[in-house]
Amino acid sequence: MKAARFHAREDVRIDDLPEPETREGTVKIKVDWCGICGTDLHEYLEGPIFTPAEAPHPLTGERNPVQLGHEFAGQVTEVGRGVTGRAEGDAVAVEPTLFCGDCAECRAGLTNLCRSLGFHGLSGGGGGFAEYTVVPASMVRPLGEVPTDLGALVEPLAVGLHAVRKSGVRIGESAVVFGAGPIGLATVTMLRAAGVTTVVSVEVAKARKQLAEQAGASVVVDGTREDVVDAIRAEAGGLGPDVAFECAGIPAVLQIHLDDLVFSEAYLTGIIGYLGDHPATIGLLADDLIDVGFFITTRIKLDKLVDGGFHELIQNKDEHLKVLVQPWTTGRGRPANRSGGSN
Amino acid sequence: MKAARFHAREDVRIDDLPEPETREGTVKIKVDWCGICGTDLHEYLEGPIFTPAEAPHPLTGERNPVQLGHEFAGQVTEVGRGVTGRAEGDAVAVEPTLFCGDCAECRAGLTNLCRSLGFHGLSGGGGGFAEYTVVPASMVRPLGEVPTDLGALVEPLAVGLHAVRKSGVRIGESAVVFGAGPIGLATVTMLRAAGVTTVVSVEVAKARKQLAEQAGASVVVDGTREDVVDAIRAEAGGLGPDVAFECAGIPAVLQIHLDDLVFSEAYLTGIIGYLGDHPATIGLLADDLIDVGFFITTRIKLDKLVDGGFHELIQNKDEHLKVLVQPWTTGRGRPANRSGGSN
Repeated sequence: MKAARFHAREDVRIDDLPEPETREGTVKIKVDWCGICGTDLHEYLEGPIFTPAEAPHPLTGERNPVQLGHEFAGQVTEVGRGVTGRAEGDAVAVEPTLFCGDCAECRAGLTNLCRSLGFHGLSGGGGGFAEYTVVPASMVRPLGEVPTDLGALVEPLAVGLHAVRKSGVRIGESAVVFGAGPIGLATVTMLRAAGVTTVVSVEVAKARKQLAEQAGASVVVDGTREDVVDAIRAEAGGLGPDVAFECAGIPAVLQIHLDDLVFSEAYLTGIIGYLGDHPATIGLLADDLIDVGFFITTRIKLDKLVDGGFHELIQNKDEHLKVLVQPWTTGRGRPANRSGGSN
Repeated sequence: MKAARFHAREDVRIDDLPEPETREGTVKIKVDWCGICGTDLHEYLEGPIFTPAEAPHPLTGERNPVQLGHEFAGQVTEVGRGVTGRAEGDAVAVEPTLFCGDCAECRAGLTNLCRSLGFHGLSGGGGGFAEYTVVPASMVRPLGEVPTDLGALVEPLAVGLHAVRKSGVRIGESAVVFGAGPIGLATVTMLRAAGVTTVVSVEVAKARKQLAEQAGASVVVDGTREDVVDAIRAEAGGLGPDVAFECAGIPAVLQIHLDDLVFSEAYLTGIIGYLGDHPATIGLLADDLIDVGFFITTRIKLDKLVDGGFHELIQNKDEHLKVLVQPWTTGRGRPANRSGGSN
């Protein structure tokens, strides 16, 4: 089968690999769609970061080249021995966290903080930029009637949901989200779904400012055109927003001194991934409580991953939001499991 | 009357001042005891920091020299016009926060975050290192049967209570407190009163290590003799403590990188002062739920404030915890309102 593997910085190849075999406790997934994540781009441009370069990853025993792709959904085509509750033909998304189950964090249920943390599609053991991948049955999240292209968005959406949950924000409160990339917009989307009445999006790129409005931002503030603090206060009141999310990944947003925390008594935290947020994300999609079809701005075939995906995103980042990759180069160009999202 | 005033760095004088007059909405307090705070020492050694040097403080209209002393308790001797519920002879402590009442923070009830924040005893308008001081009646907190030497501890204890409340720690959880000065030990004390089962105190000074045990620390860790992280894990479990408090004021404790917050999903915050924590603190004292008499390691008269107080604390800091100052140089050496504290 065809599968994209990270060999080294700026060296991601579409390799011909044997189809992976289903083992006890695992299921084989025929991938319909897999999204390109900012993490994939960072790995391509600056990596190896997450992928195991020097030593094999402790949880997979693999090192580079490893298969990429951790934002994917597809159909179960084979169910391994000992797996119950999963059947061939199930449409599924995947919560790709790899954890040891034995460290203090895992034993406390905080598996996303595992000391050996890895991800399917970054740490070995398979990945979604491939025709097939085999995952532990425990990673599988049934999509029900949610189409698999939206299913490929569940992973980044779950990051936004996890952030909103961890923020403690409540219905009727106000929020600011810095950056309107996929994670920023997932956060805006989840804030709106949580009943947050004022959601200020801070973004400078024209195309993304429009997407922020589409995601439900009450107002979009452009720091190159106006004073961000003044604009936020005008929207959220003089006290400032109840919560703020840094999703831009630029140091300017996080110029925080400890004295700022003392004199504001604000709480500062970070999040890594998600922790059981996939089912609620799928539930929000299934019940039409969030509308995210517009996240999908581009669809490409797997053989175009590097040029049509990575390079296109690097050169024209602001024109794209989520690029979905279809691993099947033959057959239907527009599969029946495709939602009405834009292209 | 005699009152200590901050004139300039290393220039605190016991001045002869007219007795302050009670105005509408205020009460006059005859000070029994006033504690020396670390903030007073910082002001003396490195100030002006809090005291208004260049411009008058917006809430008091005063600039240096201002009266010092914000940890005090005493007797009401006069009640101003329009004041209800307070009477001559009441034993009272004072919540010394000065706030404008009009900024967004004040309007949200967060008066300790007031944009013009000040303190009685630092920002003008009087202070507790004096025979008398006149305060707004709204600052007064009745002590009931709690003696006024313990009443002078209410202010620093309220800082510990505020920190413990803001931390969200719950009964049965674990905590670490860095530093066993007055605020660190107030925090240890409040954690024990909150039912926290494991309270690790981290301290290097011999005398303070003993005080930490007296305050109820389950174990005292000396970073110069053992690995602090290993020792904390041994007590609190591999996951580490549920909450940690930085009360040492040294940069080494707070070497925090944003990535640490991401991969631990820990919350970082700070606190400033207290917000309505005095009544609960007095309640804990009145009901003997906390035992803090041992905090008082030294008692001096006001005329010894600089040499016997500030300089003694600077030179032999670790041998003292709380130095209480008695403004009345004549009369009883051991007033009836004195508790059974040491010395």
